[in-house]
Amino acid sequence: MEGLVRVACCQIAPDVLDPERSANVAVDALAAAVAAGAQVVVLPELVTSGYVFASVEEAQAAALGAEDVAAAWGPIAARGDAVVIGGFCERAPDGRLFNSSALVDRDGLRAVYRKLHLWGEEPRWFSAGDQPAPVIDTRHGRIGLGICYDIEFPELTRGLALAGAELIALPTNWPHDPRPADGRPILHSLAATTAYLSRVYVAVCDRCGAERGLEFEGGSVIAAPDGGLRAGPVPGRGVGTLLAKCDLTEARHKRTGEHNDAFADRRPTYYAPALTARGSGQPAR
Amino acid sequence: MEGLVRVACCQIAPDVLDPERSANVAVDALAAAVAAGAQVVVLPELVTSGYVFASVEEAQAAALGAEDVAAAWGPIAARGDAVVIGGFCERAPDGRLFNSSALVDRDGLRAVYRKLHLWGEEPRWFSAGDQPAPVIDTRHGRIGLGICYDIEFPELTRGLALAGAELIALPTNWPHDPRPADGRPILHSLAATTAYLSRVYVAVCDRCGAERGLEFEGGSVIAAPDGGLRAGPVPGRGVGTLLAKCDLTEARHKRTGEHNDAFADRRPTYYAPALTARGSGQPAR
Repeated sequence: MEGLVRVACCQIAPDVLDPERSANVAVDALAAAVAAGAQVVVLPELVTSGYVFASVEEAQAAALGAEDVAAAWGPIAARGDAVVIGGFCERAPDGRLFNSSALVDRDGLRAVYRKLHLWGEEPRWFSAGDQPAPVIDTRHGRIGLGICYDIEFPELTRGLALAGAELIALPTNWPHDPRPADGRPILHSLAATTAYLSRVYVAVCDRCGAERGLEFEGGSVIAAPDGGLRAGPVPGRGVGTLLAKCDLTEARHKRTGEHNDAFADRRPTYYAPALTARGSGQPAR
Repeated sequence: MEGLVRVACCQIAPDVLDPERSANVAVDALAAAVAAGAQVVVLPELVTSGYVFASVEEAQAAALGAEDVAAAWGPIAARGDAVVIGGFCERAPDGRLFNSSALVDRDGLRAVYRKLHLWGEEPRWFSAGDQPAPVIDTRHGRIGLGICYDIEFPELTRGLALAGAELIALPTNWPHDPRPADGRPILHSLAATTAYLSRVYVAVCDRCGAERGLEFEGGSVIAAPDGGLRAGPVPGRGVGTLLAKCDLTEARHKRTGEHNDAFADRRPTYYAPALTARGSGQPAR
């Protein structure tokens, strides 16, 4: 089957107090996933640095250029002809820091996405992205990029699907919610419905563990176009790798029955211009 | 508390073989909900006619003018100064039929919404709506209108929230899925995440029972801005009325923490123009 792709999410625990070790843990997890046959490997957000920075200086010290990440991940991806997507603390050529995701394969750096929607204290260290989220045509399918909190913006995920993404890969660092309102981590409901609404695969690779008192969810899941969770969560919310065989060709059509099609049934003429217009960040009242 | 509103969903079972009885059942359920103190009452889709038509003629025979519906529901709403939203088979002045939702209060007909996204065989009887989904400022809060399958179009529900809806009311006739991919009816996940993403209340009033071999879900729920189900589903998927006290003022702000706001954090400059542009119904490839 042309479209059957082995997708992995490596749920690991970076440590902001030891970025070098964090980067090595990511490389080890990537290498193990590729050795296990994964063709698309998703790593968590900020996997080379950790998340809970205490100062701009700490973030700067942990920052890497996108080419550094490609140099670390590309040769490992090449062993299995895999594609890897992972989050890193990016030092841009102009010195600004971004919360970024790199897509890397045997040819090296294919794309960098800089998080559009910053969460919590991230604006203290990071500039917000100023380019749309991309869809990259890889040897294993068309992959759309987002990061963590981006999943709360249907405009972004729907836009990726409309642009042809078959799989949306979301490196994530989701804080643990001990009493989720929906009975399970809302992250899982978001992954399921994002996949269902646009008939795409959604791979959320979350981190686990804790840093400076912030516990993470360890909520990695792979959701399928039917709205089901094809893999995950990892039992016990700890370290573990999800692996799911995903027929990405399912995401190339949007038929949902004899009479319906999730995309052809759209009525864009009647959707609010405010969805995509500047200055529409607040409700009318 | 100014914003505390008693919201009801009357899950009933219309019968396409007996539209007159269906209309009476709806009136009885509405009257009982108002008597129980409901201030906003949501009825199912096509509640005055039933759903599974066998011919255009059958649909035409069951169709009503919007003023007919207002005449039936308005006086009952007036008893409790309530607002009622319900679905009906609409005969427009030009003779076309629409799958519509009326919002009625003591002043009579306040708004009609004609379903934008038709499902299944509905295009055999109904014309598709050709106006945006509205938000109506009622005495009990700002209510956005959608119908059933519309909930699968985040462009519509997000647009209602951006236009100031505090509650999205969705008369629904959801077919039963005996093996839901998400472990519960996807309708419940959609209600929960639609509410969570835009920090609004979502009232899905589904029907129950069966018509001509089509079994309905009986999946009514009221979801809150935190993503939790505040009421529903009805045990056993049968006839029943949900009643939830909803603080609609919660939906007037979109703050989600010390640093974040679900609307102010949007980056519309970078969202795909295809979301709202004509001719964008198919993916790029």
